[in-house]
Amino acid sequence: MTATSVTAPSSCCAPAEGAGLSIDEAQPLASVWKALGDPTRVRLLSLIAAGEGGEACICDLQEPVGLSQGTVSHHMRILVEAGLVEREQRGKWAYYSVVRPALDDAAAALRAL
Amino acid sequence: MTATSVTAPSSCCAPAEGAGLSIDEAQPLASVWKALGDPTRVRLLSLIAAGEGGEACICDLQEPVGLSQGTVSHHMRILVEAGLVEREQRGKWAYYSVVRPALDDAAAALRAL
Repeated sequence: MTATSVTAPSSCCAPAEGAGLSIDEAQPLASVWKALGDPTRVRLLSLIAAGEGGEACICDLQEPVGLSQGTVSHHMRILVEAGLVEREQRGKWAYYSVVRPALDDAAAALRAL
Repeated sequence: MTATSVTAPSSCCAPAEGAGLSIDEAQPLASVWKALGDPTRVRLLSLIAAGEGGEACICDLQEPVGLSQGTVSHHMRILVEAGLVEREQRGKWAYYSVVRPALDDAAAALRAL
């Protein structure tokens, strides 16, 4: 997993040194895309984004995806940890809203590759 | 994993029926983002994109990421299967090029959420 520091092995071409993203640059991008790499989470995100004011109550997310509240909560935690949605408790229910700048940043990073 | 067909449970609000992406719409998007959800694959993709003409020989990818050829090949297969890069054999070496429209589509889908 660590970069080798041996002398350059024989290779057909010049190594692309300095090009591309470092591991420190790639890690946060991969974390966001990994959170998006599940069809249920993509559906949950799209449901929240389509909700009034770009937000949705967890009580309205369970039925459309046909999963238990525990499973939906699990997926929502992953989306929150990735910074793609924010959670706000209102009395009995948790409400989730899309963090639009985070989605825009993830899109911009794809175009910048 | 399958949608329930039971009668609607008691809920605080109106269900967001018809809103959001269907499972058939979400699945291909999630597959692409899942392929991107690994820091090594993000680095490999950025190295290829930074290569001359948006392509790179596999012989130039191993050293920058500090991984064995087998591991790099494994990651490249996942990127090819996701449609993010194309593979072309030239004599001894495989060359990979970025499929720019696939990256643009993935970015556009993020913005459209």
